[in-house]
Amino acid sequence: MRPIPDRTLAAELPTLVGAEAGRTVTLCGHVHRRRELASVSFLILRDRSGLAQVVVRPGEAELPPEETTVEVTGVLTANPQAAAGVEITDPRITALTEPAETPPIELWRPTPAASLPTLLDHAPLAWRHPVQRARWELAAASLRGFRATLDAAGFTEVCSPKLVESATESGANLFEVDYFERGAYLAQSPQFYKQQLVGIFERVYEVGPVFRAEPHDTVRHLAEYVSLDAELGFVADHREVLAMLRGVLAGMVAGIEAYAAGALERLRPVLPRVPEQIPVIHFADALALVGAPADEPDLGPEHERALGAWAEAEHDSDFLAVEGFPLRKRPFYTHGWTGSTHTDDGEWSNSFDLLFRGLELVTGGQRLHRPGDYDAAIRARGEDPDAYAAYLQAFRHGMPPHGGFAIGLERWVARLVGAANIREVTLFPRDLHRLAP
Amino acid sequence: MRPIPDRTLAAELPTLVGAEAGRTVTLCGHVHRRRELASVSFLILRDRSGLAQVVVRPGEAELPPEETTVEVTGVLTANPQAAAGVEITDPRITALTEPAETPPIELWRPTPAASLPTLLDHAPLAWRHPVQRARWELAAASLRGFRATLDAAGFTEVCSPKLVESATESGANLFEVDYFERGAYLAQSPQFYKQQLVGIFERVYEVGPVFRAEPHDTVRHLAEYVSLDAELGFVADHREVLAMLRGVLAGMVAGIEAYAAGALERLRPVLPRVPEQIPVIHFADALALVGAPADEPDLGPEHERALGAWAEAEHDSDFLAVEGFPLRKRPFYTHGWTGSTHTDDGEWSNSFDLLFRGLELVTGGQRLHRPGDYDAAIRARGEDPDAYAAYLQAFRHGMPPHGGFAIGLERWVARLVGAANIREVTLFPRDLHRLAP
Repeated sequence: MRPIPDRTLAAELPTLVGAEAGRTVTLCGHVHRRRELASVSFLILRDRSGLAQVVVRPGEAELPPEETTVEVTGVLTANPQAAAGVEITDPRITALTEPAETPPIELWRPTPAASLPTLLDHAPLAWRHPVQRARWELAAASLRGFRATLDAAGFTEVCSPKLVESATESGANLFEVDYFERGAYLAQSPQFYKQQLVGIFERVYEVGPVFRAEPHDTVRHLAEYVSLDAELGFVADHREVLAMLRGVLAGMVAGIEAYAAGALERLRPVLPRVPEQIPVIHFADALALVGAPADEPDLGPEHERALGAWAEAEHDSDFLAVEGFPLRKRPFYTHGWTGSTHTDDGEWSNSFDLLFRGLELVTGGQRLHRPGDYDAAIRARGEDPDAYAAYLQAFRHGMPPHGGFAIGLERWVARLVGAANIREVTLFPRDLHRLAP
Repeated sequence: MRPIPDRTLAAELPTLVGAEAGRTVTLCGHVHRRRELASVSFLILRDRSGLAQVVVRPGEAELPPEETTVEVTGVLTANPQAAAGVEITDPRITALTEPAETPPIELWRPTPAASLPTLLDHAPLAWRHPVQRARWELAAASLRGFRATLDAAGFTEVCSPKLVESATESGANLFEVDYFERGAYLAQSPQFYKQQLVGIFERVYEVGPVFRAEPHDTVRHLAEYVSLDAELGFVADHREVLAMLRGVLAGMVAGIEAYAAGALERLRPVLPRVPEQIPVIHFADALALVGAPADEPDLGPEHERALGAWAEAEHDSDFLAVEGFPLRKRPFYTHGWTGSTHTDDGEWSNSFDLLFRGLELVTGGQRLHRPGDYDAAIRARGEDPDAYAAYLQAFRHGMPPHGGFAIGLERWVARLVGAANIREVTLFPRDLHRLAP
């Protein structure tokens, strides 16, 4: 194949045309749309930066069908009537593939008008739509903001194994793997590893896949999702973890503003304000507030919605932390409650859920760090500490008091853009029924 | 637990002591080493930033055993005899856990003197050693450099699913997963997805785990490793991919220099020079150079070593790209050879391996992008294109000419530090025999 000449991006044209109108430029991209009129035709080219209008006089060039990839060489021309004040005239259009088949989704329409199953079955095409693509651009920019915040705070990025010997959360929703003729599991979270790594690096984070064999079909669960995990040592309690989480969320919003300007323009989501102090309510007070029985062990979706509305009305906040979840409903590594209120019994824990616009987005808290506490907590659940020997060795040899949190990337984006179903913002969702594309 | 007071890091002490000697500071960390002499004792504290010396007069404080986590509050004192010209005197030492059990590896020795199996069995402890930890700090800094380079070049980070329906490379080394009572596999690479995503974002990268059920025990293979994948559209051929790879490698070295200064000091690795142009040799010429038969289908480890030595001697380069690998030995999506030499038959491909100091570090190349070429390539291997329908839909609807590469993170670090076995630089290695810790 002949070399592609120096290439100009669509988004560069408006700036270039001031000084360089009349210059020959080459663009590469997909045919986003053709419009053939009697006296003139238009080809709208789409590249990673945006759209560009190419004007074709009768007989000047053939217009390949939508989605065909093309190289267009033509004259950079100012035209106040064109979308960005600029167009390409006198074009030479070279198709880079066979003519594209007609896509099952009309990608040139302002919004991708198709049912969710159609969008998911044709994900490699549906994500080409500029509005759909913008959703992932928010995700990618959020990842940059997440890492930048933690890098600046002295965290070390880690990569923990996804093939593991035993459950980290509960045995209920594990995927089993045939591992060289013995059983292994896919990690439900990097929890055990990020704790052990706190003993090494003190502050660690990981962005990676986690796996949950969720046997239910819901709009907020996936069998595989991206978890943004952080864990930090030498904290006094879960409130210090929450303060770090607050900085991370602010960093994710800042990342979007810095790196996803185009996506913000296309989607116009309402970005959350991250308050200097995220409002906090104790679990017991939260139950009372929403009128739930005092012995409820967890918050239901309807409770989360009511609490979100309350945080909005009372604190003008998109976020609300519910602290002190009942210890018996949290994993064995959860640290008991050390707050100065709600000291009536040993029921509560130094853990929290963070609600974002009335949906659980983050789970976090302080963990146990003393080996004796681990032995007791594991025995209290009727298990044998020896079954956790590999994990517990870090604790027997000195661990900092520590805590951390995990943010679900897809939930974050779904909430940002108001998606009704988490699958709408997941590149290639995996669930009970879906393993492809 | 009472709140931990404002904390100073060990590495901050030398700077602080100039203006603030005599001030009270609080440090947190592990007891790295105690030395009890007749008239005075020393506690060396280790935190994420480095080591600090604490001077303990007789009767002043108890010294907890090595690895116990402690909080030390004392007086910042200049002492030209101390390692960094500074020490903490009049300390109050508070243990934050039970006294640590004696570790199976003496972490305070200059190098972690233990056999590889001992180091691996006790990975959560072994990685605490400052020299061992430095190896991962090189990895983490390399990841920052990788992303920074590609972010600046207009790439979008993506997260592709690890649970997949079919093989991407070959069916031989797949892990099978029980996926809601049907079969699924762990992705051997994000190859199919990153290609489809090029049709959406044009330039994409992903850092994530890949899975290979390697049935052999070698010093260079793992069952799970971290792959640094990139893929870019609108390239003329594999040489443009190689040019991007060159920039990425330079960025990874720059990342180490910028973010892993402490690790460089502890390890003193010889960082590679990344030449402006990475030297390239055709596969056929490489075989001739090392005296291998002309019909060898691949390079063996001994060939790679010889070629590495040649690149060093002839081009003063740590890197050598071998291009034009035989098409029949590469995956079906590999683009045929378009070079101006070696045009004698259809045997060669636009793909390459990059050797780093005589070991394959990267595989890359140009991929097919025309749907007709895919159908022909799949049929030529005796398979049915319909079996790849989900993947091929991207191609039937217009794809850019494209290519990409995948760097193995652990191999990169192993080669940087001269590790004989890749497990020495992997946080928690997975292989034929090892699934924990």
